[in-house]
Amino acid sequence: MRRIKCTVQYDGTWYAGYQVQPNSKTIQGEIEKVLEKIHGKPIRISASGRTDAGVHAIGQVFHFDTDTKFPVEKWLPIFNSQLPNDIVVNHVEEVAGSFHSRFGSIEKEYQYKVYRGPHKSPFLIHHAYHVPHSLSVQKMEEASRYLLGTHDFTSFCSAKTEVEDKVRTIFTISMEEEENMLTFSLVGNGFLYNMVRIIIGVLIEVGQGKRAPIEVKEILEAKDRRAGGKTAPAQGLYLYRVKYSNDN
Amino acid sequence: MRRIKCTVQYDGTWYAGYQVQPNSKTIQGEIEKVLEKIHGKPIRISASGRTDAGVHAIGQVFHFDTDTKFPVEKWLPIFNSQLPNDIVVNHVEEVAGSFHSRFGSIEKEYQYKVYRGPHKSPFLIHHAYHVPHSLSVQKMEEASRYLLGTHDFTSFCSAKTEVEDKVRTIFTISMEEEENMLTFSLVGNGFLYNMVRIIIGVLIEVGQGKRAPIEVKEILEAKDRRAGGKTAPAQGLYLYRVKYSNDN
Repeated sequence: MRRIKCTVQYDGTWYAGYQVQPNSKTIQGEIEKVLEKIHGKPIRISASGRTDAGVHAIGQVFHFDTDTKFPVEKWLPIFNSQLPNDIVVNHVEEVAGSFHSRFGSIEKEYQYKVYRGPHKSPFLIHHAYHVPHSLSVQKMEEASRYLLGTHDFTSFCSAKTEVEDKVRTIFTISMEEEENMLTFSLVGNGFLYNMVRIIIGVLIEVGQGKRAPIEVKEILEAKDRRAGGKTAPAQGLYLYRVKYSNDN
Repeated sequence: MRRIKCTVQYDGTWYAGYQVQPNSKTIQGEIEKVLEKIHGKPIRISASGRTDAGVHAIGQVFHFDTDTKFPVEKWLPIFNSQLPNDIVVNHVEEVAGSFHSRFGSIEKEYQYKVYRGPHKSPFLIHHAYHVPHSLSVQKMEEASRYLLGTHDFTSFCSAKTEVEDKVRTIFTISMEEEENMLTFSLVGNGFLYNMVRIIIGVLIEVGQGKRAPIEVKEILEAKDRRAGGKTAPAQGLYLYRVKYSNDN
């Protein structure tokens, strides 16, 4: 048995999310279909984490085990000739059997795109969140500092989650503006269900002046999802990269 | 009667093109549907020119005549609340009855996007042409210089066109690279049917070393569409702006 690690990009617009679900088109489902064709039997893949319906990935990582003998460089053309156009594998390598895409990850980066043009853009409907009102980046930066470090993020996690340990560490939150596009970048050791989208929802309320930056600290301390704000919509979110301890 | 001039952006991916056709979703059709609802009768719009299926627009211009009395600033919210998400009107003004979106245009700019990443991008399937091979921008720039100025562009025009006068003037052709995206920008007094896509098709062959830059001159002088090359695909093309004599 050999373990294969793959990095994959996808446009999540037309998918019901990463995880296999009956009667729905999913990222995992499309990838496993290709692997089943090659192996003649079902092959399960494991990803670094799920992404929701409409969420995109620039650097999602998954692995699978195979008893095929072909050289590792064959996998990339196999995937890309058989997957739909909106799922593209861009790196494949053989890894040790101890590698695990989910449990071995030590750092994840998500990006969230907010389009600030006065009118919506026909090109960004499924790829950014349109916020035409004025936003104070300075206030959002101030607010984001309360989230840095290790905290119990219960207030920033969907109540639907099954995970018990809600303590996570956020290393950095940054914002970059280019023309009318504001890109948030969040790096942490892991993120809870909907955590990035709830953080962005609250930061946007701060940027719009609906909340003071200090309220982010109060929300965090409340440890109650009801203290938080709206979940920002899926289409602005990108799983940007996943880092493992043996990466450079 | 008042004449209204509108600037519109659209993502042409899911449309059969600009021009109304029976049983097809078209840009003109969607806009005229809104106008018919408002006026209670069919209203025809005139655009600066057609765009083909899959071609996009950043600054298409159209006009129409109306006997309604509402202030001009009402039109923008009317259009944008009733048009599909991938068609967005971003400027509306009242103009003199002598204004004509097609016959009055003195300059047009088209852009063409070529994505040069090693793998296709799931985010650009419908919005750029993927050319992963190495391209010499220098050779393409050299070749493009033969096209500048006033020429008979018969070799660079679809044989399907009905237009008789094939003489056009190209003011500038420029190329800009940003990361893996190469954007061609062509400015001229007007472009024939498929002219930009045929020019790009030939320039890419030059960039790939399949033709020498001087061949562009020979193609032009042949005045025969068969002398030209492949038509570059629709999805990379954007009608960027249309200029009128009274614009600043």
